Amino acid sequence: QLHKQSDSLINRAKPIISVDKAKILQNVNVIANMQYANNSNFQDGDYTGSNFAMNQFRLEVKGMVLDNTVFFRFRDRYTRTPTVQSVDNVDHSVDMIFVGINLSDKFSLAFGKMCADYGGYEFDMNPIDIYEYNDIVENADNFLTGAQFTWNAPKEQQFTFQVLNARTKTFDELYDNAPDIEAAKFPAAFVGNWRGSFAKGLLSTFWSYSLITEASEKQVQYIALGNQLNLKKVLIQYDFKYMKDDLDRLGVVSGLIPESYLPNTALKTDYIEHWLRVQYNFAPKWNVTVIGMVSDSYWKGNLDTAVSNDHIRTAWGVIPTLEFYPFKQLNLKFFASYIGRDYKYSNTAKTTYDLNDSSTGQVMVGFIAPLKFL
Amino acid sequence: QLHKQSDSLINRAKPIISVDKAKILQNVNVIANMQYANNSNFQDGDYTGSNFAMNQFRLEVKGMVLDNTVFFRFRDRYTRTPTVQSVDNVDHSVDMIFVGINLSDKFSLAFGKMCADYGGYEFDMNPIDIYEYNDIVENADNFLTGAQFTWNAPKEQQFTFQVLNARTKTFDELYDNAPDIEAAKFPAAFVGNWRGSFAKGLLSTFWSYSLITEASEKQVQYIALGNQLNLKKVLIQYDFKYMKDDLDRLGVVSGLIPESYLPNTALKTDYIEHWLRVQYNFAPKWNVTVIGMVSDSYWKGNLDTAVSNDHIRTAWGVIPTLEFYPFKQLNLKFFASYIGRDYKYSNTAKTTYDLNDSSTGQVMVGFIAPLKFL
Amino acid sequence: QLHKQSDSLINRAKPIISVDKAKILQNVNVIANMQYANNSNFQDGDYTGSNFAMNQFRLEVKGMVLDNTVFFRFRDRYTRTPTVQSVDNVDHSVDMIFVGINLSDKFSLAFGKMCADYGGYEFDMNPIDIYEYNDIVENADNFLTGAQFTWNAPKEQQFTFQVLNARTKTFDELYDNAPDIEAAKFPAAFVGNWRGSFAKGLLSTFWSYSLITEASEKQVQYIALGNQLNLKKVLIQYDFKYMKDDLDRLGVVSGLIPESYLPNTALKTDYIEHWLRVQYNFAPKWNVTVIGMVSDSYWKGNLDTAVSNDHIRTAWGVIPTLEFYPFKQLNLKFFASYIGRDYKYSNTAKTTYDLNDSSTGQVMVGFIAPLKFL
Repeated sequence: QLHKQSDSLINRAKPIISVDKAKILQNVNVIANMQYANNSNFQDGDYTGSNFAMNQFRLEVKGMVLDNTVFFRFRDRYTRTPTVQSVDNVDHSVDMIFVGINLSDKFSLAFGKMCADYGGYEFDMNPIDIYEYNDIVENADNFLTGAQFTWNAPKEQQFTFQVLNARTKTFDELYDNAPDIEAAKFPAAFVGNWRGSFAKGLLSTFWSYSLITEASEKQVQYIALGNQLNLKKVLIQYDFKYMKDDLDRLGVVSGLIPESYLPNTALKTDYIEHWLRVQYNFAPKWNVTVIGMVSDSYWKGNLDTAVSNDHIRTAWGVIPTLEFYPFKQLNLKFFASYIGRDYKYSNTAKTTYDLNDSSTGQVMVGFIAPLKFL
Repeated sequence: QLHKQSDSLINRAKPIISVDKAKILQNVNVIANMQYANNSNFQDGDYTGSNFAMNQFRLEVKGMVLDNTVFFRFRDRYTRTPTVQSVDNVDHSVDMIFVGINLSDKFSLAFGKMCADYGGYEFDMNPIDIYEYNDIVENADNFLTGAQFTWNAPKEQQFTFQVLNARTKTFDELYDNAPDIEAAKFPAAFVGNWRGSFAKGLLSTFWSYSLITEASEKQVQYIALGNQLNLKKVLIQYDFKYMKDDLDRLGVVSGLIPESYLPNTALKTDYIEHWLRVQYNFAPKWNVTVIGMVSDSYWKGNLDTAVSNDHIRTAWGVIPTLEFYPFKQLNLKFFASYIGRDYKYSNTAKTTYDLNDSSTGQVMVGFIAPLKFL
Repeated sequence: QLHKQSDSLINRAKPIISVDKAKILQNVNVIANMQYANNSNFQDGDYTGSNFAMNQFRLEVKGMVLDNTVFFRFRDRYTRTPTVQSVDNVDHSVDMIFVGINLSDKFSLAFGKMCADYGGYEFDMNPIDIYEYNDIVENADNFLTGAQFTWNAPKEQQFTFQVLNARTKTFDELYDNAPDIEAAKFPAAFVGNWRGSFAKGLLSTFWSYSLITEASEKQVQYIALGNQLNLKKVLIQYDFKYMKDDLDRLGVVSGLIPESYLPNTALKTDYIEHWLRVQYNFAPKWNVTVIGMVSDSYWKGNLDTAVSNDHIRTAWGVIPTLEFYPFKQLNLKFFASYIGRDYKYSNTAKTTYDLNDSSTGQVMVGFIAPLKFL
């Protein structure tokens, strides 16, 4: 039983010389990515309740498995019900499972389920460091299966190019009964990305353009422009994001319009976002950060010509946070954070789609750790 | 892709000096907690069937991740379908995921999903060593998210205090349509616990008092008094447990009363339990243990004043077991066990709620191991 | 919390002397079994679509945990939704979780969920090396819970004998409303297996006979005869398989007959299969393999005496593959494969059961790796 269905010399599934165990142990890490908090929630100013929650728990294994040549990464959430997805065949809880190969110092390839390499610093951070995402990252399909090519260009510039499945579910599962739209035979996402670094890291950029085929003749285009200024004790990050959906893949607008008005997924939606994060390391072991963000959503596909205004809502967010790192040797921080959200609807949205302004607040006190435990 | 969404020096998610890998490997263990058996079942004396089953399989990682200061524990079941719970956001299969910090030799803190620190030796044992729980432990929510404070007092006494979520599901999910009861805004459990040790471990105590807010003005109170006498070759453990539910959180009574009589969760239930375990190490590598247990359940909330008797049933249990440890170096035992249960209903329960006496039996032959495999 | 519900000296769940950590690390491996590909699908000659998919991802931990005496294996799929099975109590995603003991050089025992030790080289290969299974292995319940006894006989012969649960689900779950059939009280599978090796490995055999009690007086008998000729650069494997179901456990025939004709699981079905695999190592690091396979299915249980022909269909399969192993030290291969299937129905099946001939094709390009990462 120990050897049943495993490696067989004859089929050459076993390497001729095996990689040294000690070397693997040194180069592979097992990490428990955790965000734990006591969350207190407010709706339009009224306290609605509190709870303790493991807001995030993603178990991760990653590292080099063959010298400097072959790398591997696996990350799985215990905060999402695992259900096999029909397109890529992997549990929904699995963020990443891929193998990569460094062809040289300059070029590498990776294959498997991975992070779509969208630009912007908001999406590049470890998710446990995010207290709340803006609308696009929150609602997009961020972990997709496919292939990546990376070029480490001279002068600390990096370019990546990905071909990925457009999503993890089938067209029919996502857009049940979408009228007059035909599914694509190979719904794919093409993501191009530039990571730039200038003046010894003082200024960095992280820009991407993505073209995603959602259905036959229905594309999603997504531009994300991340910019960072690193002034030692102060770090400033600014992302601009623009997404244009022929078919509303993001689903925010489709979720807002009442089903009685629009029974199907909306056509022609636009999302425009700004995200600014300032971090100040005001004392050893202490950081204060403030995030300000805004997301505008538009529906240009309303067939009723009497409705001329395509602006649906402006979602504001402000997130001040205090962070404390008690240990020199361990990546663990305690934090206190407030997440304020304000949803302002256009007059058209209020009168035509029956939507109302609202605001939510959340006080979070807890800890965050990408805890290396093996 | 290897570094996407992971640690970033700038955001100081990476430690200045990392803990030595060899030290972590020495201090962290990976354990497969298993109880495997061939189970043969009997109902009221008749043989009903047999099967092989992995009765329990809980994978566990635990240990010190920073010297003697920071500890970590994660335990996940492969014998329970993982479904994210709405209150604490973690898969139902996850027993524990917490981080703890030793503030000094005397004080420590822990945060995350953990064992509710209820007293009693029955609940303190590794679940794989239990062949069948008595009613309270079997039906209670034992793994909850929150915080624990521990005081290692002088003379081998230990006191712990916990604040936890009252449960993992919301009020609406558990008590659908409960009439005239309002959900609490912060349904919390407060657990206080005393572990005592006297006469060099000859006598130990493990007592707790818990106050759990189930709903607005509906509390659960739970007292568990564990006592142990350790006479070298003979070990005697006796638990007394008393639970008083304003709203029947345990659910045993609510499950017994026919839905036609009581469509909702019962109000005012009481549970009183005794649990006695005697273990005799009669030869090297051999143990014999006997457990005797009894659980009485009461429903004081019946509004029909004609029903004066609130006693519902007495559930008896007797579990004789023979255990054999073949290996000196490995914690693995083979066992043969019989689980006899006898359910005796009160006359009122028989006539008013249409319940009938019954008995079940189970013969189990198998192995148990908290197998350390990394 | 670190020690709650874990080992306790008193209950002797902790070994007297613990196995050395370094020794465990040396003897236990953690393996990510992966098959990743871009799949392009064809139906009756027409292109129907493409996608990237992690066709297989099975995480595995295995090795000796106590010198040469106690071994352990655990394999879990992230490509199957985990749901606890009612008979063996383990998640459906778990292929194996067992503990084994070498009683001597000659005899060993294993207990837990394991591979049913069916013969044939098709089933013995690591599943990631299989691009598509023939009907029997594809549809059988291959991972069952029970016990195995192994005898390493002289002259490189090995005999195994297993007693296993017949399945992971109950009779009622599988055969809802089966008329006039009574469930068995202990539905068990008995599997006997012979692995032979002759002329220094030039010729090998892998034969098994299995008797599976599906229901009271309803048996499944399964014979699998695997044969292998190893001519250094060329490897030839041929399996003959024959399965006879009193009650159609395999379900292929029951799935083909329209529900309007047969509302329940079919009685008396037969399956006969041939599977031939030729592998040619035509250059260092390069293999070419061709698999040819055919599966015939019969329904002898049709009560309509007017239907005299019991042959339902012949399913053909041909799978040519090119494989490339770029690394000497790592078990990773890139592959390009074509899977052609052709389904030919008998005239009776066409006229009586309204079935039509069809064919499917799949082009796969990807990588396969049992990646050892710890």
